[in-house]
Amino acid sequence: MSAKRTRSGGRAQRRQERQGTAAPRLPYIQRGVGTYRLLDDEGLSLIEANAETILKEIGMEFRDDPEVLEIWRDAGADVQGERVRFEPGMCRALIQKNAPRQFRQHARNPEMSVEIGGDNSLFCPSFGPPFVHDLEGGRRYATLEDFRNFTKLHHMLPSVHHSGGVVCEPVDVAVPVRHLDMIYTHLRYNDKPFMGAVTAPERALDTVNMAKIVLGEDFVEENCCLYSVSNVNAPLVLDATMLGALKVYARHNQAVVVSPFILAGAMSPVTVAGTLSQLFAEVLAGLALVQLIRPGAPAVFGTFASPISMQTGAPTFGTPEGMQIQFCAAALARRLGVPFHSVGALTASKVPDAQAAYESAMQLQAAFLAGVNFIIHATGCLEGLLTMGYEKTVMDADICGALQAFSKGVDLSENAQALDALREVGPGNHFLGCEHTQRNFETAFYRSSLADNKSFEQWSDEGAVWHQDRAAKLWRQMLKDYEKPPMDEAVDEALLAYMAKRREEIGEGGA
Amino acid sequence: MSAKRTRSGGRAQRRQERQGTAAPRLPYIQRGVGTYRLLDDEGLSLIEANAETILKEIGMEFRDDPEVLEIWRDAGADVQGERVRFEPGMCRALIQKNAPRQFRQHARNPEMSVEIGGDNSLFCPSFGPPFVHDLEGGRRYATLEDFRNFTKLHHMLPSVHHSGGVVCEPVDVAVPVRHLDMIYTHLRYNDKPFMGAVTAPERALDTVNMAKIVLGEDFVEENCCLYSVSNVNAPLVLDATMLGALKVYARHNQAVVVSPFILAGAMSPVTVAGTLSQLFAEVLAGLALVQLIRPGAPAVFGTFASPISMQTGAPTFGTPEGMQIQFCAAALARRLGVPFHSVGALTASKVPDAQAAYESAMQLQAAFLAGVNFIIHATGCLEGLLTMGYEKTVMDADICGALQAFSKGVDLSENAQALDALREVGPGNHFLGCEHTQRNFETAFYRSSLADNKSFEQWSDEGAVWHQDRAAKLWRQMLKDYEKPPMDEAVDEALLAYMAKRREEIGEGGA
Repeated sequence: MSAKRTRSGGRAQRRQERQGTAAPRLPYIQRGVGTYRLLDDEGLSLIEANAETILKEIGMEFRDDPEVLEIWRDAGADVQGERVRFEPGMCRALIQKNAPRQFRQHARNPEMSVEIGGDNSLFCPSFGPPFVHDLEGGRRYATLEDFRNFTKLHHMLPSVHHSGGVVCEPVDVAVPVRHLDMIYTHLRYNDKPFMGAVTAPERALDTVNMAKIVLGEDFVEENCCLYSVSNVNAPLVLDATMLGALKVYARHNQAVVVSPFILAGAMSPVTVAGTLSQLFAEVLAGLALVQLIRPGAPAVFGTFASPISMQTGAPTFGTPEGMQIQFCAAALARRLGVPFHSVGALTASKVPDAQAAYESAMQLQAAFLAGVNFIIHATGCLEGLLTMGYEKTVMDADICGALQAFSKGVDLSENAQALDALREVGPGNHFLGCEHTQRNFETAFYRSSLADNKSFEQWSDEGAVWHQDRAAKLWRQMLKDYEKPPMDEAVDEALLAYMAKRREEIGEGGA
Repeated sequence: MSAKRTRSGGRAQRRQERQGTAAPRLPYIQRGVGTYRLLDDEGLSLIEANAETILKEIGMEFRDDPEVLEIWRDAGADVQGERVRFEPGMCRALIQKNAPRQFRQHARNPEMSVEIGGDNSLFCPSFGPPFVHDLEGGRRYATLEDFRNFTKLHHMLPSVHHSGGVVCEPVDVAVPVRHLDMIYTHLRYNDKPFMGAVTAPERALDTVNMAKIVLGEDFVEENCCLYSVSNVNAPLVLDATMLGALKVYARHNQAVVVSPFILAGAMSPVTVAGTLSQLFAEVLAGLALVQLIRPGAPAVFGTFASPISMQTGAPTFGTPEGMQIQFCAAALARRLGVPFHSVGALTASKVPDAQAAYESAMQLQAAFLAGVNFIIHATGCLEGLLTMGYEKTVMDADICGALQAFSKGVDLSENAQALDALREVGPGNHFLGCEHTQRNFETAFYRSSLADNKSFEQWSDEGAVWHQDRAAKLWRQMLKDYEKPPMDEAVDEALLAYMAKRREEIGEGGA
């Protein structure tokens, strides 16, 4: 390799480093590689049969929502009080008859729309943390400025394919109007798809209305533009809040994820097989309900299942059992024929240290190899989702980029086979200068924007900087370099006017 | 869960923490889970065909070893100078006719003997670093005391199944006699199997002789007690040093790994497919030679292939391409029908930070899911194998323990299905107190001995300790708690006498 080429590589690298990772900006990943299979068909059939037994014998509770109980009664389920029991196969048949195997969630920038399901995967930031963390400021309550910062970073990071939902809780904004600022931020500061509010039906409706202002009234009614998660309160309960949002989104033909939130051992049995049976029962009932409300509405099988420490009760992440549950649930979703949504770079660590990285890499890579279609919490998680980390975000995004590169699979073209290069070079020589290398080296290997591969001496001379400190430098530079994606001024004004009107309606007391 | 049970869990945990990880002390892993398949049969056949083309058209060089050239000539290969070319299928047939699919390497403690090949996997420490690193002392040249320390830690760590070879280079001992101290340390301070010296034939012979003192002369001649790696000097060269050791071990029926050492892009083409074809050609020729020297001798397919940065020339680790090469090579080894040896927790990081953990976790988990039988460099690597890390060793071992737990697969017993627990608890309640949880919680989930899952407040109150600092505390405590495994005093004296005699023979000038 000539010095000239090395320098040119350096310029390209610096350009890519300003983007945050060296991955190309793709809307989503079309997988060129297969999935890892943990349980065989016999084992999966056993879990499925147990889930049907649970639905038939124990049933699910749908709390404080008479309308939903009426829907189930009309569909022929056995409703007693708030407890609903189902004949074996009933929920499965409703889902398989109506739910799409794959669908497109539209972004306001059509180039960033995502395919959800099938052989596609995408990485989405963490959801829900009330705190943020960075090395300089430490851990503190999140603000709207933090929410905006993260949304800007996710806009720039090429291996993060979604703007997410509550990327952190902006606690400096009053709860009743907080969702308006979050929705606006997603729509204004990022051009990727995003998630809708689920904490109340009227907030879900605000999400739909604001999306309509940007994407068009008819377009939103006819296409999936929002993606929202309804958590099952494991074991076996769906409450009025989650049901309320679920109904709004389903009726508007927007994607609903039914995702049991399980700390295994506390909210499910202390075994992988028991947890799987329970969560599959919960998902079957939830997805069937979506199809009863609006047949054909995009509906996604979700899981969040992490074991607790049986010594202290604390949730644990990146564990062998958590990965086992995820591998099996992904296979159950494929057999059911719906897209699968599950967790990525989770960690219990409070800081961007090696624990955070080990746990995150294990679970993120497992999610990818499991074939998870929508990988939530792929970036930023600290402290078991109580904290969104700035350094952690760009650190995780770098690994997402590596997995995105892995997803292309092995190139078997004649160029990639490189027999001519082998003939040219021969035994005992090196390939650096050969014609094949000169032709391919710029695109050959994934290039991390954070890993330090320098010699010990050079690394020491440059200050012996640890990974988290390189990450701190990167995200700060990215925020300086950020440019707002373009938006029609009239649309922006309409959004702001809608928010002003709603703030007035909601008032101080809240809706 | 009662307070009493929690306390009892706490005691068990402390006991396990003193061991270094919470994994049980197993001699090796019997995999209850399958492997991840990256290339299909058609793709693998293409690589195999290209390897045969390389062997036929380009050939391999066997340098400075007329005896080996004579062996090849007798076997019918085309020998011109030091270049040897092979008819398609010749090497493959020699291997498949003679080499065992699986074999046992005997340890001096029979309970720690390992099965290599088939559905078995094991974790082995890093090999070769001239430096060591710990947080307090920083990076420095390794000494015999360091070598002894690491051997003690590996003896104690239950998810490290092998004592390794040059776990670090004890540079305070003269090169000509250094191997004697290393062999003695493995035999005396650890009861697990270990690797033999390969840097000269007479050092290989010393390894065989010292093993015979401990395990018995006849036993060593009749059983595999040593395991040694001969690196191919990629591309396509085996030199006299590696050939010399290879011949000694093969003639004594001890296991030989033929492992091309490849920095892809420099020592192989800059593509995954090209690198795979080359390394498979190298392995075929090397393993066939072993079978010509002693038909039936245990012979292992090894790889060490990491891409270099095409911008700086530095080796990189835990990369998507490195993982792709490993997944495919593992499949090639299974099709060939020999055990597979490859890399684990490699990193270019100089310190036990998040880069070290991300890169190590990605490659280690990939190695495990690829079905690598002998996972070398599973613990301790820093700085691309230039440094052996104390903190890194116990950090990696914790992840080895998690993968060992994962390897058991999903328990589908009636107890694990937990239908009774689900019936007992019902919707909206928790499982902590139920009979099933009481019966199973102690063995339910893998317990990391390093991860901190406490609340932010508790973690802060206890000093806000980062992962690497917990690791520093752990390895120091382990060395304090270390107890030498028992050895017959006469055997120990015989070893020391052999070393004294050999030191005299070798003298100051060296052998």
